[in-house]
Amino acid sequence: MTQTLVLGLDIGGTTSRALLADLDGRQLASGTAAGGNPTAHHASAAFAAVETALRTALGGVDPTRVAAAVVGMAGVGRLAEPEVRDRFAAMWQRVGLACRYQAVPDAVVAFAAGTAEGHGTLLLAGTGAIAAQVRNRRLGRIADGHGWLLGDLGSGFWLGREAVRATLAHLDGWTGRSDVVRRLLAAVLGRAPDPSRESVIAVVNAVRRDPPVALARFAPLVCEAAAAGDPVACDIIARAAGHLIDSATLVRTADPTSPLVLAGGLLVGDTPLSTEVRARAARCWPDAPVTLAGDGAAAATWLAALSLPDPPPAASLHARLVTPG
Amino acid sequence: MTQTLVLGLDIGGTTSRALLADLDGRQLASGTAAGGNPTAHHASAAFAAVETALRTALGGVDPTRVAAAVVGMAGVGRLAEPEVRDRFAAMWQRVGLACRYQAVPDAVVAFAAGTAEGHGTLLLAGTGAIAAQVRNRRLGRIADGHGWLLGDLGSGFWLGREAVRATLAHLDGWTGRSDVVRRLLAAVLGRAPDPSRESVIAVVNAVRRDPPVALARFAPLVCEAAAAGDPVACDIIARAAGHLIDSATLVRTADPTSPLVLAGGLLVGDTPLSTEVRARAARCWPDAPVTLAGDGAAAATWLAALSLPDPPPAASLHARLVTPG
Repeated sequence: MTQTLVLGLDIGGTTSRALLADLDGRQLASGTAAGGNPTAHHASAAFAAVETALRTALGGVDPTRVAAAVVGMAGVGRLAEPEVRDRFAAMWQRVGLACRYQAVPDAVVAFAAGTAEGHGTLLLAGTGAIAAQVRNRRLGRIADGHGWLLGDLGSGFWLGREAVRATLAHLDGWTGRSDVVRRLLAAVLGRAPDPSRESVIAVVNAVRRDPPVALARFAPLVCEAAAAGDPVACDIIARAAGHLIDSATLVRTADPTSPLVLAGGLLVGDTPLSTEVRARAARCWPDAPVTLAGDGAAAATWLAALSLPDPPPAASLHARLVTPG
Repeated sequence: MTQTLVLGLDIGGTTSRALLADLDGRQLASGTAAGGNPTAHHASAAFAAVETALRTALGGVDPTRVAAAVVGMAGVGRLAEPEVRDRFAAMWQRVGLACRYQAVPDAVVAFAAGTAEGHGTLLLAGTGAIAAQVRNRRLGRIADGHGWLLGDLGSGFWLGREAVRATLAHLDGWTGRSDVVRRLLAAVLGRAPDPSRESVIAVVNAVRRDPPVALARFAPLVCEAAAAGDPVACDIIARAAGHLIDSATLVRTADPTSPLVLAGGLLVGDTPLSTEVRARAARCWPDAPVTLAGDGAAAATWLAALSLPDPPPAASLHARLVTPG
């Protein structure tokens, strides 16, 4: 008898990943392609990328062996729009998949990538920032996630913008030259001019040449300066952590032992922001286990397995499939 | 003997205005045209607008009678760039002007539009926001004025963005529906949906259809709600006033009796923000006269008269030409 397989798709703005696994938690094959989110790309290009990832993951396997699939992405509502849904369904058929798929918000997949529990809190900080309540593996209340223009407080965009602001304050003559200012001037102008309004204008114009969201490119530089002890960078990090904890506080459930999952490059990586957020979380919610989100595609595959009529034990499959070793 | 004339040009991003006056403070003729700032428009289109304003103002007058001129605009540094300077000089010749012109930062012209004093503080809040020290009618230190992406705290853009943020907080279920939220939802969606993530996304998407700086269009709505006593709008206004007073504090000179000139639509008009800023200024600097900037073109004309080899008395000419009645 051929074994039942499950499929997880983690569709991001820059990368799409498909993963095939069996119910013993063995990862059989995976495929990666360009970003496939139809809100960030046109649906046809987006689903072409998803199709590439799927075909690679399915490889020599008979696609009708896949019994369940979960598609995780931001803005899953798009997948319910008739035109987008039809395009996706056509692509699904083209690769030979016969099972249905379940569309799951990326926040729920990220949460599942950090814990096997069904309830808890997700806190994500990458280019953007969002906090979400998860209840029964469904999205509950949300705080922020409003994008760089209106929110994303404590995100990579926010860190980068604060670094530029600190630099402008220095160039206007209000503050001394700190390490983060030195690093930012080197990155933006390739030199560190003396304070003057001309230098202010040069930095403002240089920053404006790129799209606003590209301010997130300065986030690593803030982290480096903070790690080196620069007080200006440490203050930016502390304020970012404050914003993120504020968002998490809004969506924190009543159960003090429910887990807090940290996700997004700035919180999953070894960054001063992650350290600061974990320290504050330990003070705010001493009884909450704090974990880092792992592989989103593996979490999607795990959720697919749980959606089967006779699902395998959740916790042990999670340990093998999502958080091995 | 024909009387000596002076010319003032107030070049803005949306309007250019030229004013012709005599040394008795009589306004003889003026001309208005489209925005003429070469940093906001291409130099040729910009200076075509300035030329239109100039020709209207000069009308039937012999342009060689103009003995002095002041050109006020944001980013006067552009006028020193060879190509821009040559274009401007060619236009100047075309309209028959024989005198030299002096390029003056718009902040100095705005300051002169509110006081005849040479030293003091300018605080401006329109679409953007800036505070500037003026010394001997020259620009001293500056605070903010960094544009909507990086600063302009307390500006019209900032007010509009905070109104949208308050609306998103309501739609995410964290706050009740206040008057400012009701007004903003009516303006953005034409309806007031119940709190839901779908409504959040609808507002975010609607706002994103316009350029970011267009958030300033919601500033009047914040002012209206605050005037009607809405606590959320009043809080936004109070925070805006705090940012503006912070900026003014940075550039405030040591002399407690030097004037504070308020400029920009949000501070010159009868708005709750202007009321709040004036109340705080009265507490912070009880000995400073606080005035409102009047006609920028008249102030430029006045500055032109002061640049003559044998200038008329500054204060009395200011009273007649810039702040009559």
